[in-house]
Amino acid sequence: MDLIYIFDLAGTFVFAISGAITAIHKKFDIFGSTVIAFVTALGGGTLRDVLIGSTPVGWMLDTNYLFVICGAVICSYLLLKPIQRLRKTMFLFDTIGISLFTVLGLEKTLSLELSMAIAIMMGTVSAVFGGVIRDILCNEVPLIFRKEIYATACIFGAFVYLIFRHFEVNYHLSLIFTAILISFIRIMAVRKDWSLRV
Amino acid sequence: MDLIYIFDLAGTFVFAISGAITAIHKKFDIFGSTVIAFVTALGGGTLRDVLIGSTPVGWMLDTNYLFVICGAVICSYLLLKPIQRLRKTMFLFDTIGISLFTVLGLEKTLSLELSMAIAIMMGTVSAVFGGVIRDILCNEVPLIFRKEIYATACIFGAFVYLIFRHFEVNYHLSLIFTAILISFIRIMAVRKDWSLRV
Amino acid sequence: MDLIYIFDLAGTFVFAISGAITAIHKKFDIFGSTVIAFVTALGGGTLRDVLIGSTPVGWMLDTNYLFVICGAVICSYLLLKPIQRLRKTMFLFDTIGISLFTVLGLEKTLSLELSMAIAIMMGTVSAVFGGVIRDILCNEVPLIFRKEIYATACIFGAFVYLIFRHFEVNYHLSLIFTAILISFIRIMAVRKDWSLRV
Repeated sequence: MDLIYIFDLAGTFVFAISGAITAIHKKFDIFGSTVIAFVTALGGGTLRDVLIGSTPVGWMLDTNYLFVICGAVICSYLLLKPIQRLRKTMFLFDTIGISLFTVLGLEKTLSLELSMAIAIMMGTVSAVFGGVIRDILCNEVPLIFRKEIYATACIFGAFVYLIFRHFEVNYHLSLIFTAILISFIRIMAVRKDWSLRV
Repeated sequence: MDLIYIFDLAGTFVFAISGAITAIHKKFDIFGSTVIAFVTALGGGTLRDVLIGSTPVGWMLDTNYLFVICGAVICSYLLLKPIQRLRKTMFLFDTIGISLFTVLGLEKTLSLELSMAIAIMMGTVSAVFGGVIRDILCNEVPLIFRKEIYATACIFGAFVYLIFRHFEVNYHLSLIFTAILISFIRIMAVRKDWSLRV
Repeated sequence: MDLIYIFDLAGTFVFAISGAITAIHKKFDIFGSTVIAFVTALGGGTLRDVLIGSTPVGWMLDTNYLFVICGAVICSYLLLKPIQRLRKTMFLFDTIGISLFTVLGLEKTLSLELSMAIAIMMGTVSAVFGGVIRDILCNEVPLIFRKEIYATACIFGAFVYLIFRHFEVNYHLSLIFTAILISFIRIMAVRKDWSLRV
């Protein structure tokens, strides 16, 4: 459990950095960058919590998320160039973050006794809607609507995770396997330039 | 009641189709089109539920809405051209959907003991904000803010419905009359190019 | 308390007028202008209420807010030119509104036993996110993300208010001092063209 929490914070950190860097490139000021970092990292989970009625939303009850995001914003300004050289490490933690956000969002939804279809949906919302809200705040068409990168991976991973869950496979094993599966699909999608355009 | 439910699903289906077609014209991929179909059909009711505090939001408790929307997305891809020829039928069901969404949203708001002014407002939000959220996600100024097509019809219809309700007119009769009234105003507005520009 | 309520309504009125004027310049119709006036005035508080789980959102329980906003929209259309000449009076009430929205948002958040960091954040959200949502609905990059005008003033004021609160300084005195402080920072920021760009 502790390890999951640490990875959750790490995922939040990487999401926040990617948001802050986007904002810096858009010439936003520190306030704007902090908002975008925040929304990129926590926007998906916030939307999920509001929709399923789990309020106050999750991050309000654990200020570590705020500190992690503020830290990420400071790092983004101080270490803009070195961070941009760490693309591969960033991509790795980003992918771990996505997988984890999907499964944690799914579990939270199921814990409120909502159906499995809704749980898969809310898992995916947790992982991808931070980026959608970021793009809207930056006045752009959400990237993920045009060139699907990881939503399908999340949906598929969530589905497989539910099958494991049904057969009562060990929680940590399911989580790790799902994370690897989502990462694998995502990496393949980027490499092979898979797309859902018709 | 059953008939209302069927019309509600039919309205959802038509709204979803119109959302999916918009997304296809914008070159969104399947994921993007599904999100836009979903938001167009259920966004207004979702916003209403979140604002009045009726969470988890309505469609989470009845997966038929999800199936109807997925069906609408599939139809939109397979039958893009035939559907676009069915403009009049679409417009009819769209109008029935709007009327129904208005009245159902109004009733739901009143059931939480909120005031009539808020109920009229939330009825209108249910009917028109799906389109507003769709336009924002597509990075466009919401059409309805510039060239008002049906918001006034909804507000007026909601008002008349409340008068019927006050005099305890039969529920179904009120509903049918309101639907006809909203449809009539809307059709006239389109035909005569009515507008609220000053 | 009564005086605070009156200033709250006055702040709402001025925010609504500024929203309506923005919408009129964008050639929105009456419906669009009303939505933008509404969102500018109550959007920040609404977002706060949804996030902290205080639903139905505040303005649903007191229709005075709706009347004030409708009045503001009517004034905006009838008195467009005279209002635009009253810039300084508008700016004064706008600043009082911002200060008040910050402190009231902060107090509401604390009353739900959330932490002080979250309270500062939600106070700021109450004051500035109405403008953010307005800009998004108008399809513009939120002004406040690029050229920070008052978010920092709100954050700083909220912080000082919490210190007063900790030392149990009289509520009204704290409120008045915070309002003056936020106004002072804001006026200086505008005069000296302070910015947070790096």
